[in-house]
Amino acid sequence: MKIQKLAVLFVVATLSACAQVPKQATVFHYATIDALLAGAYEGELTVDELKRKGDFGIGTFNRVDGEMIVLDGDVFQFKADGTVAKASGGQFTPFAVVTSFKADNRYEVSKETSMKELEDMLDERLVNKNLFYAIRVDGEFKQLTTRAISPQDKPYKPLAEVTKTQTLFNFSNTRGTLVAFRSPGFAKGFNVPGYHWHYLSDDRKAGGHVLALSLSQGAIKVGAASDIEIKLPANSMFANTNQTVDRATELKAVEKLRKD
Amino acid sequence: MKIQKLAVLFVVATLSACAQVPKQATVFHYATIDALLAGAYEGELTVDELKRKGDFGIGTFNRVDGEMIVLDGDVFQFKADGTVAKASGGQFTPFAVVTSFKADNRYEVSKETSMKELEDMLDERLVNKNLFYAIRVDGEFKQLTTRAISPQDKPYKPLAEVTKTQTLFNFSNTRGTLVAFRSPGFAKGFNVPGYHWHYLSDDRKAGGHVLALSLSQGAIKVGAASDIEIKLPANSMFANTNQTVDRATELKAVEKLRKD
Repeated sequence: MKIQKLAVLFVVATLSACAQVPKQATVFHYATIDALLAGAYEGELTVDELKRKGDFGIGTFNRVDGEMIVLDGDVFQFKADGTVAKASGGQFTPFAVVTSFKADNRYEVSKETSMKELEDMLDERLVNKNLFYAIRVDGEFKQLTTRAISPQDKPYKPLAEVTKTQTLFNFSNTRGTLVAFRSPGFAKGFNVPGYHWHYLSDDRKAGGHVLALSLSQGAIKVGAASDIEIKLPANSMFANTNQTVDRATELKAVEKLRKD
Repeated sequence: MKIQKLAVLFVVATLSACAQVPKQATVFHYATIDALLAGAYEGELTVDELKRKGDFGIGTFNRVDGEMIVLDGDVFQFKADGTVAKASGGQFTPFAVVTSFKADNRYEVSKETSMKELEDMLDERLVNKNLFYAIRVDGEFKQLTTRAISPQDKPYKPLAEVTKTQTLFNFSNTRGTLVAFRSPGFAKGFNVPGYHWHYLSDDRKAGGHVLALSLSQGAIKVGAASDIEIKLPANSMFANTNQTVDRATELKAVEKLRKD
């Protein structure tokens, strides 16, 4: 009894020491979207380290080798050759966004819904546009178009150049999960304002960065986050990237193949 | 012995649970500069809560009632009536940026130096422009111009409107401390890119948001930070602020009385 009491006391004391200002749900960022847009394709954060910051999220791998999907604590890599694999713990990311997913709200979709309709529907429901939202959609998709990027070689070109050679994938009647964030406008320097959708199929055979979709039916879960963490890479590539320019046009170009 | 071992085990387990990815120096933000520019002048973070996030920094108080200077763990309020007082633990801030100050580098200034010369000198030394830097300058100032804003009433006007009625202060031969940050370009939505200087005199009688200065001699300490935290207010004022527009011009207007 005495031992238990003392142990509990220590745990409570230590927990309150690291909690400090009460934490809400946190969205963790490694690096910035502006650095990625500029061609800083090498980071030093491993998949194992990223996993400690969240169980749900999106990103890419060093050399922009495919699209990252973090789902239920596993990190998947959808490559430009169309294969899906679990990433190894030692793989590096140059940019990733993760959270510990916790749903505040659930919605159902039962009629055919395009990407734009899905975003409009969510925009109606997510009243506070200045929070981050993690969005999970488990469903059946009549049609889904994704892209993935092939691993790049140095000297790295800006992402808007690289996406001109991206590989497109069209999936029909696929069942799986959309992993997404909605980020507020003030995130423009470090994340993608608005919606950013990645996909992974239930059979772990399809995935990618979503450009278009037609959802037949699905269950949507949304979790708001009001705490943000950003960890900056320590390498010279990140240090030397010009992050003072407005990259909104480049970001639009990277996203422009979307067919709403 | 058994009790101690068990307790130590619990502490180690709990500490490693909160340490996770190794932390570098962290700059903590409450709210965003874009919300402040838009007139969201009410926050819910207390001075006591802010202190737990750092011992050094800058900000303002609810209703933009004066300028905040956080120095050696104390939080000071320089009001538009020219008085300095220690803030009480229960006062609220709508926007603040703090860190646990730790100097990586030190420089000396021994000849008369303007604000622009000081910033140029630092720009030469702070090679990585994509990190945050906390900057502390203890020195003697031949001349120093600051401003402070009077507490505002609802409905709140945008900050660029409010600063038109700011109170200016000219101090001569004052000895004290500049408390500042240099923020990278990608921080544009949530912090002020470039330098942001506040001041507090040794006799705790002068202070404010610095617009111009002439440093006679001083000791500069700089600490880099690669980890960023942002905590967003939960109130409706922050939620309803339009943070999708580019407020660079407004930010410039707020800073425009600088006489370099």
